[in-house]
Amino acid sequence: MQRYVSEVLGTFAIVFCGTGAIIINQETHGAITHVGVAMTFGLIVSAMIYALGNVSGAHFNPAVTMAFTIAGRFSGRQVLPYIVSQLTGAVLASAVLRYLFPANALLGATLPAGSEGQSFVLEFILTYFLMLVVLNVACGSKEQGMFAGLAIGAVVLLEAMFAGPICGASMNPARSLAPALVSGHLEHLWLYLVAPTVGAIGAVFTWQFLTRPVVPAEECE
Amino acid sequence: MQRYVSEVLGTFAIVFCGTGAIIINQETHGAITHVGVAMTFGLIVSAMIYALGNVSGAHFNPAVTMAFTIAGRFSGRQVLPYIVSQLTGAVLASAVLRYLFPANALLGATLPAGSEGQSFVLEFILTYFLMLVVLNVACGSKEQGMFAGLAIGAVVLLEAMFAGPICGASMNPARSLAPALVSGHLEHLWLYLVAPTVGAIGAVFTWQFLTRPVVPAEECE
Amino acid sequence: MQRYVSEVLGTFAIVFCGTGAIIINQETHGAITHVGVAMTFGLIVSAMIYALGNVSGAHFNPAVTMAFTIAGRFSGRQVLPYIVSQLTGAVLASAVLRYLFPANALLGATLPAGSEGQSFVLEFILTYFLMLVVLNVACGSKEQGMFAGLAIGAVVLLEAMFAGPICGASMNPARSLAPALVSGHLEHLWLYLVAPTVGAIGAVFTWQFLTRPVVPAEECE
Amino acid sequence: MQRYVSEVLGTFAIVFCGTGAIIINQETHGAITHVGVAMTFGLIVSAMIYALGNVSGAHFNPAVTMAFTIAGRFSGRQVLPYIVSQLTGAVLASAVLRYLFPANALLGATLPAGSEGQSFVLEFILTYFLMLVVLNVACGSKEQGMFAGLAIGAVVLLEAMFAGPICGASMNPARSLAPALVSGHLEHLWLYLVAPTVGAIGAVFTWQFLTRPVVPAEECE
Repeated sequence: MQRYVSEVLGTFAIVFCGTGAIIINQETHGAITHVGVAMTFGLIVSAMIYALGNVSGAHFNPAVTMAFTIAGRFSGRQVLPYIVSQLTGAVLASAVLRYLFPANALLGATLPAGSEGQSFVLEFILTYFLMLVVLNVACGSKEQGMFAGLAIGAVVLLEAMFAGPICGASMNPARSLAPALVSGHLEHLWLYLVAPTVGAIGAVFTWQFLTRPVVPAEECE
Repeated sequence: MQRYVSEVLGTFAIVFCGTGAIIINQETHGAITHVGVAMTFGLIVSAMIYALGNVSGAHFNPAVTMAFTIAGRFSGRQVLPYIVSQLTGAVLASAVLRYLFPANALLGATLPAGSEGQSFVLEFILTYFLMLVVLNVACGSKEQGMFAGLAIGAVVLLEAMFAGPICGASMNPARSLAPALVSGHLEHLWLYLVAPTVGAIGAVFTWQFLTRPVVPAEECE
Repeated sequence: MQRYVSEVLGTFAIVFCGTGAIIINQETHGAITHVGVAMTFGLIVSAMIYALGNVSGAHFNPAVTMAFTIAGRFSGRQVLPYIVSQLTGAVLASAVLRYLFPANALLGATLPAGSEGQSFVLEFILTYFLMLVVLNVACGSKEQGMFAGLAIGAVVLLEAMFAGPICGASMNPARSLAPALVSGHLEHLWLYLVAPTVGAIGAVFTWQFLTRPVVPAEECE
Repeated sequence: MQRYVSEVLGTFAIVFCGTGAIIINQETHGAITHVGVAMTFGLIVSAMIYALGNVSGAHFNPAVTMAFTIAGRFSGRQVLPYIVSQLTGAVLASAVLRYLFPANALLGATLPAGSEGQSFVLEFILTYFLMLVVLNVACGSKEQGMFAGLAIGAVVLLEAMFAGPICGASMNPARSLAPALVSGHLEHLWLYLVAPTVGAIGAVFTWQFLTRPVVPAEECE
C-alpha cells in the first residue's frame, strides 16, 4: 500500500512542479524561461528518486513500469495498481493547478510544434535513452545505483531542455494524459501515450544485450 | 552551543545569499535573472547542509525544526533555542543587506503576486514536498543521507524556480520574517509563517505512513 | 561486441542531444539559449558515463580513445573498432537530425567565429583540461571514480558554456566530423580533428608526471 | 614538485575559464549571460577539486592556503611555493587570454560597481562562507570529503551569481591579481587582495569553535 501512495505522491510532484512551471511561465510572461522549466522537470525527478526510491522504486511513469515488467524486473501483478496510482497522482496535480490558475487554457499539455511524425520520432528517441539510463543505473553496480537520481534527473533535464520546444518532451504518458484530460485538449494525445511506451520498451532489448556477461573495460581496471 | 552557532550561520548564509540575490537583481535591473536567483537559493541550502549538517543537523528553518520535533526525531527542549538561533541569523542577514543596499525597499520580502489563497496553497504544497524529501533522505538509508544535501537543495532550487514568481517560494518562516521586519513590510507575513509550518507538519504524517515496514520494491533487489 | 554497441549508443546520444540543441535553438529562434545548449552537452555526457561506463569505459570520443591508448590504459587492438563505433554513432545522429530538421543548413557543425589560430588554441586547451580531468578521475581513487561522471560532465558543460561562442567547443573529432559530413560543411574541419587530439595527448604527459608517487597533501590527512 | 605543478594547472584553469567567460561574454555581446559566467566559475572549481584534490589538496587560492596554514592544517614552509605556483598559473592564464583576445581591455579584472566599502564587506562575507565550507567539508567526515568538490563548487557558483554584479565575486587574490597585472588595471586591486584573505582567516576561528567536540544532532542518529 505504501508503494502505491509513494507512486501517487511522486507523480503528483512531477506533474505539479513541471507543468506548474509551464503554466506560471505563461502567466508571468516568461519570468521562468524555458531553461527554468527544463530545470524544474529534471530536478523534481531527481529529488523524488532520492526521497521515494526506497519505497516504491520511483517509477512515476507508466512507460517505465511497463518496460521494467517486460525486462523481468517488476511483477506483472503490480503493473495495474502502479499505473492507476501514477494516473491518480498526475490528474490530482492537474486539478490543483486548474484550481490555482483557472485562466490557463492548456495546463501544460504537450502538443507537437511541427508534424506529428517529427514529434513521434523525438518522443521515441527521448524515452528510449531515458529508459536505457534508468535500466543501467537502477539495476547496475552499487555505485551506479547511488548516482541513479542524478543520472536520471540529468537526462530528463537535458531532454526537456533541447527537445521541449518541438515535442514538449513528455517521455511519460501520465504527465501528458493528466493536463490533456483536465484541460480537454485531447488532440495529439495518442502520440504521447504510444511513442514513450514504445521507446521505453525498445530500450529493454538494448539493455538485455548490453548486460550479457562482458569483459570489463581495460582502462580503469 | 556550537549547534546554535551553526544554525545562526547557516540561516544567515541562506537569507544573505538568497534575498541578496533578489536585491542585487533589482539594483542591477535584472542582471542575475530569476533563474539565477532560484539557483542561488538552492545551492546555498545544499552547501550549508554539507558544511554544517554534522554540527547542528542543518535545519535553518523553524518549520523544519517543528516538524522534526513532531516526528519524534528532535528533542522538544531544543526547539526554542533552535528557532531563536534561526531568527537571529536571518535578521542579522537582512540588517547587513540593508546596510549594504540602503535604497532597496523590500529587502527580498515575500509577497503574493495574486490572491493570498493562491499563495497559501502553493506555500503549503511547496513546504510539504520539501519536508517530505528532508525526512526521507535525512532519516533514511545511508546512501540517501549522503545525497541529502543534493536532494534538498534541488527541491529548494526547483520550487523557487517555478513558484517564486507567484508566492515568493519562501518555505521558511525565518526567511520571510527577517526581511519583513527589517524593511517594515509586515503585510501578508502571517501567510509565510503559517502555510510553511502547516505544510511541513503535514509531511510528517505522510512520512510516518511511508516508513512503516514495507516489502522492498522488486525491480532492483 | 557489447562495448562497440555501447560506444555507438553513447556517441549517438551525445551528438543527437548536443547538436540537436543547437539545431532546435536555431529553428525556434533562440528558445533554448546558449546556456541551455551548454547544459545539454554537459548533462548528456554525464548521464552516458553513469549509464554505460561499466560496459565500454564511456569514451565516446576518438581523441579520448587515442589518449587512453598512449597512456597505456587501453589496448591498441581496440582503438580502430572503438573509433569506428564512435563515428558510426555520430553520423547516425546527424542523419536522424537531418531527417527531422531538413531545413537546417549546418546541423550543428563547429565553425570558428574568429581566426582559425584562435579556435585552434582554444580547442587545444579545452581538450587538454577535459582529458586531464578524465585521466585523473577515471584512473584515480575510488572516490574520484564515483564522481567521474559529474566531474567530466561539468568540464564539458563549462567549456561549452564559455568557449562555445568562439570555437564551438567541440573537444571531440566525432562530434565535429558527423554534422560536417552530413551537412557538407567540411571547411575548417581539419582544426576540429587535429586540435582536440593533440590536446588530449598533451594531457597524458601531464597526468603521467602528476601521478608519479607523491607525498599526499597535508591539510586533510 | 607535482603539488606545485598541480596548483599551477588548477589556478590556470580557473582563471582561464572563469575570466575567459567574462571576456567572451563581452566580445560576443552577452552570448554567455551572467548566469553562464557564474556557472563557469563554479563548475571549473568543482572539476579541478575532483581532478587534482589528491595531488595538491586543490587550494588554487592564496587566501585558502593562508587560512589552512593558520588553521594548522598546512605546513608553513609550503605557503610561499604554493602562492607562487598559484600566481604563476593565474598570470599565465591572463597572458594567454590577452594573446587570444587582444582587443579586450579589462581581461576580466574585478572592479567594484559601487563604493569600495560595499565591495569590501561583500568580498569579506563571500570568502568567509567559502572558507567555512572548505574547512568543514575538506577536513570533516569521509562523506563530507566525497562531496567536497560539489559543495565548494556550489558556493563559488552561487556567490559569483548573486554578488558578481556588485563586487565581481573574486574570493581569490590570484584570480584578481592576474588580470589586473596583465591589463594594467591595478586600481581597487588592494581590496581584492585584503578582503578575501581576511575573510578566509576569519572562517578559521569559526571552524575551530564549531569543531570542538560536540554532542551530535539527535534527529538522525
